[in-house]
Amino acid sequence: MISKAKAKFIKSLQLKKYRKEEQCFVVEGAKGVAELMSSDLEVLWLAGTEAFLRQHHPLVSRQKAEVVAAGEKELTELGTFATNNAALAIVRMRPHVAPNLKSEFVLVLDDIRDPGNLGTIIRTADWYGIKHIIASEETADCYNPKVISATMGSFCRVHVYYTALTDYLYGTDRPLYGASLTGETIYDVNFGKEGFIVIGNEAQGISAAVHSMIQKHITIPRIGAAESLNASIATAIILDNVFRSQK
Amino acid sequence: MISKAKAKFIKSLQLKKYRKEEQCFVVEGAKGVAELMSSDLEVLWLAGTEAFLRQHHPLVSRQKAEVVAAGEKELTELGTFATNNAALAIVRMRPHVAPNLKSEFVLVLDDIRDPGNLGTIIRTADWYGIKHIIASEETADCYNPKVISATMGSFCRVHVYYTALTDYLYGTDRPLYGASLTGETIYDVNFGKEGFIVIGNEAQGISAAVHSMIQKHITIPRIGAAESLNASIATAIILDNVFRSQK
Repeated sequence: MISKAKAKFIKSLQLKKYRKEEQCFVVEGAKGVAELMSSDLEVLWLAGTEAFLRQHHPLVSRQKAEVVAAGEKELTELGTFATNNAALAIVRMRPHVAPNLKSEFVLVLDDIRDPGNLGTIIRTADWYGIKHIIASEETADCYNPKVISATMGSFCRVHVYYTALTDYLYGTDRPLYGASLTGETIYDVNFGKEGFIVIGNEAQGISAAVHSMIQKHITIPRIGAAESLNASIATAIILDNVFRSQK
Repeated sequence: MISKAKAKFIKSLQLKKYRKEEQCFVVEGAKGVAELMSSDLEVLWLAGTEAFLRQHHPLVSRQKAEVVAAGEKELTELGTFATNNAALAIVRMRPHVAPNLKSEFVLVLDDIRDPGNLGTIIRTADWYGIKHIIASEETADCYNPKVISATMGSFCRVHVYYTALTDYLYGTDRPLYGASLTGETIYDVNFGKEGFIVIGNEAQGISAAVHSMIQKHITIPRIGAAESLNASIATAIILDNVFRSQK
C-alpha cells in the first residue's frame, strides 16, 4: 500500500519545478529501474510488482532505500506511462558540477527541445561510449519522464550538465565541431581523439553565438531530397562517423 | 467558413478505418502542405490562412481542388496538432500497387509500431534517396497524422507499400540485409548497388520468419554500454554506411 502523501509527491515530480526543488526524479518501467539498481545513482524509494522484485532479487536486496511491493494498477496510477507492469523508483539527481573531461568526445546540445529527441540522443551517445553531454539551459530537462523513458536505461551512464554554452565553451582548446549544410563532409573529416560536437535546435539549428565559436563545420552528405534530418538522427550519423574514424 | 460536415469528415480521417474506407488522408502544417502542393499527390481539398495562401500563391493557383481561406483557430480545431497557423489538406492515397523496383536500395520494415519512428524513417530514407519502403501489415500506418508530421514533407517522395513480408520477399534475387547484434560490421560490408535492408520491430527485432530469409546479417559497432539503438537511429546509421560505400 502506497500512502497518499507518497503518491502526491511522486506526481509532483512530473514537473521540473518540483524536481529541481527536491533534487530528485522518477524512473518508471522494468528496463529503467533494473539498470538504475546496478548504477551509481542513489535510489531513494522503490516500488515493484512481486514478480519484478523476485526477478531482480540480488539487486533489490542491495538497495538501501525503502522497497515496497505494489500492484500494476497502483504503479500505473503513480506514473506517466499508459501502463507500468513492473517498477517505479524515486532517485536523487546527480550533483550539478561541471564534468572533469579527459581526452574524449563530448556532445554539446544547443537547445534540443523535444524530450523524445533528447532521450534518443542520450541512448545513442551511450551506444558510442560518450560519457558527457553539455546542454544549454533551454534544452529539455534530462530528468523529464519522457526523456528517462526514451533513454532505455542510458540515463544511468551518460551525464548531462546544463550551463550557458558560450561561457562554457569560451577558451576551450578542444576542437569544436558543428553540423551545418555547408561544411566538410563527415566522410573526410579527421576527428582526432577528442572534441566537442555541437547539435543545434530542431527548427533553428545552432544559435548564432555558438555558431561563431565553431572551428570545423561538418556536413552529412545527402543523396535525396529531404531538407534536413531529425536532430537525434543527425547526432547518430555523426557519432558513427567519429568512432568509425578512430579505427 | 468550413462546413460542419467537412469538419466531421476531416476528423474521421484521424482513424485508419475511415482513411482506408475513403482512400484519403490529412496533411497539416505549412511544411507538409507546401511540399504536398509541388508533389504528384492529388490534393482533394485545401484550407489555409490568407498569409499561407498568399505566400504560396503560384502553387495554390495550380491546384484543381477547392481552396478555402481559414483562420488559425479553425485550422487548429480541424486537425490533430496543438496549433496549426498555416494550412490543412485532404489528399488522395496512392494506389496500393507493388512498386516496380529498379537497381536500388529498399527499406523493409518488419513491424515498426511507433508512428514517430516510422515518420523519422521516411524522412531519413528521403535524405538518402530511398524511393520505396516495403512494410509489414502490422507496421504503423504511413497516413497516420503523427507519421505525416514526422516525415517533414518526405511522405511526398517516399512510397510505402504494405504487404505480407515473407510472401513478398520469397524468391527475390536482390540481397537481403538484416541488422542484428552478431552480424558483420557495417563498416566492412560491401553493399553493392542494390538490396533490401530489413529493420525489425522496436522491442522484438526481426521476426523469425523474415529472419530466416536474411542472407547477410549486419551489425552496427558498439563502443559503449547501451543494449540497443532506437529503430529509426539504426536505420539512419545503416543507410549512411550503405551510401558511403557507394562512393
